[in-house]
Amino acid sequence: MHHRLEVLVKELREMGLLVGVGSLLSWDQETYMPSGAIGVRSEQSALLASLVHEKFTGDRFSGFLSDLMNSDMDDFSNSEKRLLMEVHRDWKRAICLPTSFVSEYSQLVSHAQHVWQEAREKSDFTLFQPHLEKLVEKSREKAAYIDAQKPAYDVLLDTYEPGMTTAYLTPLFATLREGLVEILHRLPSHEDVLSDRVFPVDKQWDFGIWFLTQMGFDFSHGRQDKSTHPFTTQFHPHDVRITTRLDAHHVMDGFSSTVHEGGHALYEQGLDPAWFGTPLGEAMSLGIHESQSRMWENKIAKSASFWKGQYGRFQALFPEALSDINWETFYKAVCRVKPSLIRVDADEVTYNLHILIRYELEIALMDGTLKVSDLPAAWNKKYEDYLGICPPDASQGVLQDVHWSCGLFGYFPTYTLGNLYAAQFFEKMKEEILDLDGCISRAEFAPITSWLRKNIHGVGRGKTPQELVKDVTGKSLSQEAFIAYLLGKYL
Amino acid sequence: MHHRLEVLVKELREMGLLVGVGSLLSWDQETYMPSGAIGVRSEQSALLASLVHEKFTGDRFSGFLSDLMNSDMDDFSNSEKRLLMEVHRDWKRAICLPTSFVSEYSQLVSHAQHVWQEAREKSDFTLFQPHLEKLVEKSREKAAYIDAQKPAYDVLLDTYEPGMTTAYLTPLFATLREGLVEILHRLPSHEDVLSDRVFPVDKQWDFGIWFLTQMGFDFSHGRQDKSTHPFTTQFHPHDVRITTRLDAHHVMDGFSSTVHEGGHALYEQGLDPAWFGTPLGEAMSLGIHESQSRMWENKIAKSASFWKGQYGRFQALFPEALSDINWETFYKAVCRVKPSLIRVDADEVTYNLHILIRYELEIALMDGTLKVSDLPAAWNKKYEDYLGICPPDASQGVLQDVHWSCGLFGYFPTYTLGNLYAAQFFEKMKEEILDLDGCISRAEFAPITSWLRKNIHGVGRGKTPQELVKDVTGKSLSQEAFIAYLLGKYL
Repeated sequence: MHHRLEVLVKELREMGLLVGVGSLLSWDQETYMPSGAIGVRSEQSALLASLVHEKFTGDRFSGFLSDLMNSDMDDFSNSEKRLLMEVHRDWKRAICLPTSFVSEYSQLVSHAQHVWQEAREKSDFTLFQPHLEKLVEKSREKAAYIDAQKPAYDVLLDTYEPGMTTAYLTPLFATLREGLVEILHRLPSHEDVLSDRVFPVDKQWDFGIWFLTQMGFDFSHGRQDKSTHPFTTQFHPHDVRITTRLDAHHVMDGFSSTVHEGGHALYEQGLDPAWFGTPLGEAMSLGIHESQSRMWENKIAKSASFWKGQYGRFQALFPEALSDINWETFYKAVCRVKPSLIRVDADEVTYNLHILIRYELEIALMDGTLKVSDLPAAWNKKYEDYLGICPPDASQGVLQDVHWSCGLFGYFPTYTLGNLYAAQFFEKMKEEILDLDGCISRAEFAPITSWLRKNIHGVGRGKTPQELVKDVTGKSLSQEAFIAYLLGKYL
Repeated sequence: MHHRLEVLVKELREMGLLVGVGSLLSWDQETYMPSGAIGVRSEQSALLASLVHEKFTGDRFSGFLSDLMNSDMDDFSNSEKRLLMEVHRDWKRAICLPTSFVSEYSQLVSHAQHVWQEAREKSDFTLFQPHLEKLVEKSREKAAYIDAQKPAYDVLLDTYEPGMTTAYLTPLFATLREGLVEILHRLPSHEDVLSDRVFPVDKQWDFGIWFLTQMGFDFSHGRQDKSTHPFTTQFHPHDVRITTRLDAHHVMDGFSSTVHEGGHALYEQGLDPAWFGTPLGEAMSLGIHESQSRMWENKIAKSASFWKGQYGRFQALFPEALSDINWETFYKAVCRVKPSLIRVDADEVTYNLHILIRYELEIALMDGTLKVSDLPAAWNKKYEDYLGICPPDASQGVLQDVHWSCGLFGYFPTYTLGNLYAAQFFEKMKEEILDLDGCISRAEFAPITSWLRKNIHGVGRGKTPQELVKDVTGKSLSQEAFIAYLLGKYL
């Protein structure tokens, strides 16, 4: 490797180590930290973040980077060029925001989150409204700092899903919406046979650990704990941690959450440690990340093959709850579809309608065609139109998600992109892995994990998501595989 | 406060935050970290330590400090002067060592620890000998960098116990040794009635948590976990964590360890958060720290008053193990004294003889009157002389402690100093707290904790240990209170 590039990679690795330490602070905060330590923890986290920011945008690193960007590019291999390009992208985004703006924005977000919590508790949108107005305005400003030539929403979207545009996404999502609404109308309804059953949480924990082990989650380089909101975090590919939340009355919620985070974690453990700290050792995008969690959660752990093969094991763990339920009945309950108000509780058919509603509203807010004051009415109208239900109050409607109060506009679509990517990858995997259904049925996931490692995890940010989809599946991103998958599974 | 002093305090606070983050890395490593993450964790810890070192010894901070040290001292209050003096002491010790020496020394220690482990396993001192020779030599060099005018051992001792000298300690320890040996000869022997009993660890955990709560350990600003080697760590007075190790066959080991670490933790929780990061918000010395843990462990949790009052509660937790044992029999087993080979397993009478042996040997090694090659023989001779027993091999003798392999010379005496301080403080406390024995008997520890907070914890490094002892007890440090306590308890 070019000596100056080596120096750059060493610097990036150091920053990566510090970012990992910051993630440990957050992990500890959500799992074991005593409650009274929150004040000092915020100080520690802010200090560490500012150390990394200063290092990344400081003269020393900026000098290294400029020198390299002005070098003869023929000195570099393709992956080295890609690395430089991606670092430069991150660096430009980091330096373009004036310090005063960053500080003002972070105060705004911190305050808005606080108010949002109160507003949600009181189900009173008017409390949150002025803050949301400010957040929309400041997010537009932020986008303009990054790239004043592009529509604000495209700039924000590109933050989470590099290369993605509304020009591509809007027609794709419109077609998807039609398909989903049609499926929803044709679906039979199932009874929720699990609703009054009790599943001891220690046995739930054991079943989750068993599944993670089968996935190939490496417990010598990771662990699972409990937390209020399940999440995945990583300090390095050698230390990847997930959390779950178990409830004796909702066995599938806990299991889905374990498997979902397990999918994220497997991706992080599959990143190349040799490139740690650099874009080549980082996850590609939020959408690709979500494709990993959703594939394991929905296409594997909620598949007929899996439950047909493994229901006996599950039933043996919960004899009291399940003695009178056979695998088909159980599976129908697992795959029950029913329009509901809260996104995070939604089934895999209606889930994307929740996302599409947010996407359409975000764009309208950002381009000014929708006023914040009109948002609750617009929200309710779309729920009526797409899902046939109407929120009785704002806390079950427009105030349900934390994202906007954090200034996260353009983030929601990555959830649906994850589902679309997952369907396309899974379709290809079926062609390439002999007897995939049999493997899933026997919970022998090694071929799946190998396939993901080779085709997706190891790539890092070496490609854009759209390049990856094209290279792996031979097709551009579309809604087809996902709709076909839903039709096959549900109708 | 003087503006320039405020700036200094702010810088120190920032370093304190980073040091706390480093301690979280260590805590996590000992409690929850997956084993395969050890490589990246070492990198993270080293990076954070070097960031703090660079900040503390860098031009910016050094400039602030020099300016202040050259100011008119009349501008400062007494505690501000004290703060400056202590920061200057730390800073001088940090800058006097050449970077090349620090790096060589740290490699030596890292390697020596590794070899020591192997040597202990094989019980082969000759493996460790060349490394120990090097460590003695380098420790002498280190002492000379810090202060070439003083004997090396005094410089090292002063690192852990500021102001303490061999001139003071050697005669004190000699008198102590005579007293201890005499007590040991006069002691009756007791049977170990607990040796074949089983104590479920979850009940042990509960009893420990109850005791910590009674002590006033604040669980909203701290927690207890399990680890192989019990320890206390703190990231700030608002986040103080201890660990314990429980074994169904050794109930008093686990309980003692919980109470011991609880004593350390109470000290850390009692430091003044307003001075966090500065010497006024730091523990005074290792000896004073140990006085806190040993007082709770031996003078309270192993007292006749405590067991007389609380044995019923304990017995109710362990009905199977204790139904045929009354409190007096139990208490005799708790206070059983028997010369043994391993320091960490020793009772409170013989414990200090283990320390005195190490102290005498360390001094001789450091001043060159004892060669490292003659150390095992000298060790065994002293065990024979003072304790009447002889190690059958090096692993149960000279190789048992990790300290020397870490280059920690001058550290051992702080353990005994802790016991002496504790006895003197406790004697005073008895005069000042009405019905102290009754409080202990009822496990009502609030008056004790208040007394410690007021007289010891809140002082930080505002005094030297010897000043503190004098101010609190009206007497200089001596062995008298400790010997009197042992005579009262055991004879």
